[in-house]
Amino acid sequence: MYNIAILGATGAVGQEFLRLIEERNFPFKNLKLLASKRSAGKKIAFMGKEYTVEEANEAAFHDVDIALFAGGSISKVFAPVAVAAGAIVIDNSSAFRLDPKVPLVVPEVNPQDIKKHQGIIANPNCSTIIMLMALKPLYDYAKIKRVVVSTYQAVSGAGREAMEELTYQTKAELQGDKVEAKILPCQSLDKHYPIAFNLIPHIDAFQDNLYTKEEMKMVYETQKILHDDEIRVTATTVRVPVYRSHSESINIEFCDKGIAVPVARQLLGRFPGVIVQDDPEHMNYPMPIYTSDKDDIYVGRIREDNTVPYGMNLWTVGDQIRKGAALNALQIAEYLIKNKMI
Amino acid sequence: MYNIAILGATGAVGQEFLRLIEERNFPFKNLKLLASKRSAGKKIAFMGKEYTVEEANEAAFHDVDIALFAGGSISKVFAPVAVAAGAIVIDNSSAFRLDPKVPLVVPEVNPQDIKKHQGIIANPNCSTIIMLMALKPLYDYAKIKRVVVSTYQAVSGAGREAMEELTYQTKAELQGDKVEAKILPCQSLDKHYPIAFNLIPHIDAFQDNLYTKEEMKMVYETQKILHDDEIRVTATTVRVPVYRSHSESINIEFCDKGIAVPVARQLLGRFPGVIVQDDPEHMNYPMPIYTSDKDDIYVGRIREDNTVPYGMNLWTVGDQIRKGAALNALQIAEYLIKNKMI
Repeated sequence: MYNIAILGATGAVGQEFLRLIEERNFPFKNLKLLASKRSAGKKIAFMGKEYTVEEANEAAFHDVDIALFAGGSISKVFAPVAVAAGAIVIDNSSAFRLDPKVPLVVPEVNPQDIKKHQGIIANPNCSTIIMLMALKPLYDYAKIKRVVVSTYQAVSGAGREAMEELTYQTKAELQGDKVEAKILPCQSLDKHYPIAFNLIPHIDAFQDNLYTKEEMKMVYETQKILHDDEIRVTATTVRVPVYRSHSESINIEFCDKGIAVPVARQLLGRFPGVIVQDDPEHMNYPMPIYTSDKDDIYVGRIREDNTVPYGMNLWTVGDQIRKGAALNALQIAEYLIKNKMI
Repeated sequence: MYNIAILGATGAVGQEFLRLIEERNFPFKNLKLLASKRSAGKKIAFMGKEYTVEEANEAAFHDVDIALFAGGSISKVFAPVAVAAGAIVIDNSSAFRLDPKVPLVVPEVNPQDIKKHQGIIANPNCSTIIMLMALKPLYDYAKIKRVVVSTYQAVSGAGREAMEELTYQTKAELQGDKVEAKILPCQSLDKHYPIAFNLIPHIDAFQDNLYTKEEMKMVYETQKILHDDEIRVTATTVRVPVYRSHSESINIEFCDKGIAVPVARQLLGRFPGVIVQDDPEHMNYPMPIYTSDKDDIYVGRIREDNTVPYGMNLWTVGDQIRKGAALNALQIAEYLIKNKMI
């Protein structure tokens, strides 16, 4: 039994940590719910007990075995603090993902990297996780040269307030009221756009190369997780009016052999955490409303792409808050426990 | 002044024809509104006059100069009838698009093909038109080898009833009522899925190669319009909960030279019917709620893609009912008139 702390306990990912801890009978002894000052003092009922959210500070990680960080800028401040206090930090922010000393892990994809940790293990970006769950079983069979990915990302990726924003904007629009935008595309920016009945091709900050950070995360994180600096990824990431499942249209070019559709279905189908939903004749393909609150990543619309020698198109959908964030982090913690690494 | 008939006058595209005829002062003398038996008898007020929708039949095209066909299976039946009666048919259905005797035209892209018509001129698929408006100015500068496109298509592409369906499903979902699906993905199928807060990766019928017809239209129509059998296009087409503007994430690989972003912006900016909206620093990029009811195609998120020698990513958005359908067809009619081809 382990002492657990959740940093960012009141947000969408933090709340999902709690749901998953209960659902998966995660072996915890003490549970500490931490957040920024703004949320400290809030009461949260969990498994028949009431918890008070505490403000994260230097002392908060005393006697904590595993610290689950939901993400955000607060991670950077408290990860070293938690590690110094003896906790293993599993961090959902982007702060440490590309740090060479920090393993970046999708447990089904690169579990071997977990053992290299020095206190912090990073959880990849949600879009990266969902894409890699579909790429890895194919990659192991035929090396991938290039990926062109376009995402259809749920508002949950921008947090609980973005999910609420989708609801109230949609209501306002349907009632003919003024639609106000305060959160998306990024809460920290001055300008906001409605997401109700709209699409916003802007997730996270723009970089000098005109890609967004979100787009570049898919490039660099994929290379790091696959330990393959040669795999080329180009991404366009788009926010869509969907609550909590991300979808991705993925075009793959393999290096030196193609994969026939039945073989791809087989490879994907036996990969843990992936469900093949690919029966066009019976109108069976992944859709975000049906994958929400599910643990698995769904793959369908598998087609050979003959515009290159060894090409393939896929459509992948998965719950952004579960496998895209909280579940993947908790699976890392479970791996540590199962392999007596804690 | 010309005698005009509109076939499918009560649908989303038919209604847009009327709006555009008024807006553009289209030089019409008599106007005949035609539809299937189901809609015959309906009254439509237009420019201060009341019209009664007539059932399309053999006699309906007598004395008609230009017949604007809104689309659907009815086109195949009545196009030869209208041509035999002496009309020029501009058809928005897919029935004649790949017929070698029928020009397939985007007036800004291949106006020269109009003169080859033998009575029928086909209007391309909405997704093809919107993509080609962005590709053509670049293609003229640097030949394109391959395009990987993922679409984000508005419900208007499935007609007025699909637009209504998005509204009542969204209302039901927000009120916690049962969400019923009757139209999408395709009205003619037995099974339907909700589009509210969802995505449906299925537009038009599945083919033997596992692509949908919609996806293959983007391949074949692009080749026909550009007169380039070598250009390779692979598409994934997806319905999104947006009312009337299609968006497309387009990855381009040029044959033998790249295009720098400032040059691409310039080429696109001076192409008629295209507006460059590409200033990431000021959060300026195309979004479907702002392009609806507009004539132009908006292009932004222009980025070089270094995963191939000469690559580029674009984000293109345009009103599906306007440039994607009715406007493009009416521009063909205007071209015929302007060039005294009628």
